[in-house]
Amino acid sequence: MRPPLTEPKLALQPAPLIRGWALTLILSCVYRAHGGKVLLSRLSFLPSQMASSELLKRPNGPTVTLKYYHAEPVANSLKSMIPLIEKGLPYQSVYIDLHKFEQHSDWFVAINPEGQVPVLEHDGIIITHTTVINEYLEDIFPAIPLRPRDPVGAARMRYWNKFIDEHVMNHVSMHGWHRMIGIIARNIESGEFDRLLERIPLPDQRRKWRTARSGFSPADLANATEKILYAVDKVERQLARTEWIAGDHYTLADINFYSHCGMMVERMFPELEIGKRCPRLVAWRQKLTARPAVARALAAEDRTAPGLRTWTGHAR
Amino acid sequence: MRPPLTEPKLALQPAPLIRGWALTLILSCVYRAHGGKVLLSRLSFLPSQMASSELLKRPNGPTVTLKYYHAEPVANSLKSMIPLIEKGLPYQSVYIDLHKFEQHSDWFVAINPEGQVPVLEHDGIIITHTTVINEYLEDIFPAIPLRPRDPVGAARMRYWNKFIDEHVMNHVSMHGWHRMIGIIARNIESGEFDRLLERIPLPDQRRKWRTARSGFSPADLANATEKILYAVDKVERQLARTEWIAGDHYTLADINFYSHCGMMVERMFPELEIGKRCPRLVAWRQKLTARPAVARALAAEDRTAPGLRTWTGHAR
Repeated sequence: MRPPLTEPKLALQPAPLIRGWALTLILSCVYRAHGGKVLLSRLSFLPSQMASSELLKRPNGPTVTLKYYHAEPVANSLKSMIPLIEKGLPYQSVYIDLHKFEQHSDWFVAINPEGQVPVLEHDGIIITHTTVINEYLEDIFPAIPLRPRDPVGAARMRYWNKFIDEHVMNHVSMHGWHRMIGIIARNIESGEFDRLLERIPLPDQRRKWRTARSGFSPADLANATEKILYAVDKVERQLARTEWIAGDHYTLADINFYSHCGMMVERMFPELEIGKRCPRLVAWRQKLTARPAVARALAAEDRTAPGLRTWTGHAR
Repeated sequence: MRPPLTEPKLALQPAPLIRGWALTLILSCVYRAHGGKVLLSRLSFLPSQMASSELLKRPNGPTVTLKYYHAEPVANSLKSMIPLIEKGLPYQSVYIDLHKFEQHSDWFVAINPEGQVPVLEHDGIIITHTTVINEYLEDIFPAIPLRPRDPVGAARMRYWNKFIDEHVMNHVSMHGWHRMIGIIARNIESGEFDRLLERIPLPDQRRKWRTARSGFSPADLANATEKILYAVDKVERQLARTEWIAGDHYTLADINFYSHCGMMVERMFPELEIGKRCPRLVAWRQKLTARPAVARALAAEDRTAPGLRTWTGHAR
């Protein structure tokens, strides 16, 4: 087992990572530090399959690439993709095919020893975990803020991010794994499955794959549903008080809840009658889905079999 | 049930909160915003039991109080107390007696609807959850930093804070509850216990109290121990590479791991032979315990029966 990622490090991935089938967008980012501020020049989208050596250079500063390694535009992979697009940051998209367990492949584990997507690579520095990535993007590229600039507003946003990370994400994820990853896992022959498990760096993640294959217990699934109900009710109450989840402005907390729950909860759990129970949440979801940056993120590659796309719910 | 805290709000607690037995320190904080920077004047510690009306005022700015509502100096209550002292921020300490379930009392739930300690009150604004409180303190009082000022350093710190919050804290806490809260809970007569449970705002917390009374299952305790071993090994590996957990500087990540695991893991789990297994962790713990700010925090009031203080471990 490889040690888990303990600190950002220089990426060691094989050079180009360019596969015809793997890249849907290739973007580049050029910035230069000037007077203590980061000046970001937004470049237009470059045609697909342009090699990274073709990235533009600016005369007054180093060429810097932002690479985003991600899977389908939902959950964690969506959560850091939306801020990149909202902030107008050109980035190179590297699609990681979870259906082929690419996240556990040697070349990817050399980039992220935890073997998980998404990963942000910024000028050779690796940042993992979406909440950490999104705060990092705010610190480095503050021009279009998704984190309130006043400390109280930032604290309100972090309160919600923490709630979503610790009390929402895993519960929706369990149902998603039960329905989708379970089918994928059961289609793998036993010996092959054990070999795949051995390649998963995080013990918790190995356990989750094993459970997905045998099926999560009805008690665990019921508990997860109860937590999801608690969360949607909490968000609904909040939206009666403020326009957005963390206050009067659209923030990373909205993006977090949308990506992990809000975008798909109504379609994933029809028995919860979310439309009746949480009308404000539905209106908020529609407002988010209509944002150009969100729509662009949702249009990213999705190899999930269409019949299994309960994940993406009402968002598309 | 009261709705959980969804955003910081003005405190509505009964005016003075001054009880002879409840306050061990009364401190005051005066600041004024000037030229976009917060200038903080450190005042000396005020004598115990001075009423808040006696807090000093400065001619050029409003009087501002920092109040910290906390229990014993361990785990969450310690985690935000250390930064307050490290940063030289005078604050009013309000001891909340968990042995008397004061955190679920009406007056406290009016301050924090989630009924949990600790809580930071800053100039009437309520901030909850220690990781959020500690980032807030960095945002407001940056003069003595415990969060790296460079974004990559901050991301490394947040990576560790997230790991500790999500994969360490609850596992050590389960053993602590099993040993300590379980004894407290079993000493309460059934009818009275049910009435106490009804007053707990968070469903998860109600469940934890009920389980503590009946006892956590051996399987759950063994799983928690396995996660703790994973965590101490991960920290030990990191300390072979960097002096502190998140890099070359003492940060909030060190304070987090110390408060929730490092300070007590050796004495709480003698069977793990932490001294042999993790010598770097032990040296790191001693270095932290020797810091004047940490020593001052550890000297705060502790009403836990001495026989049950496995929590505080080797730190005192």
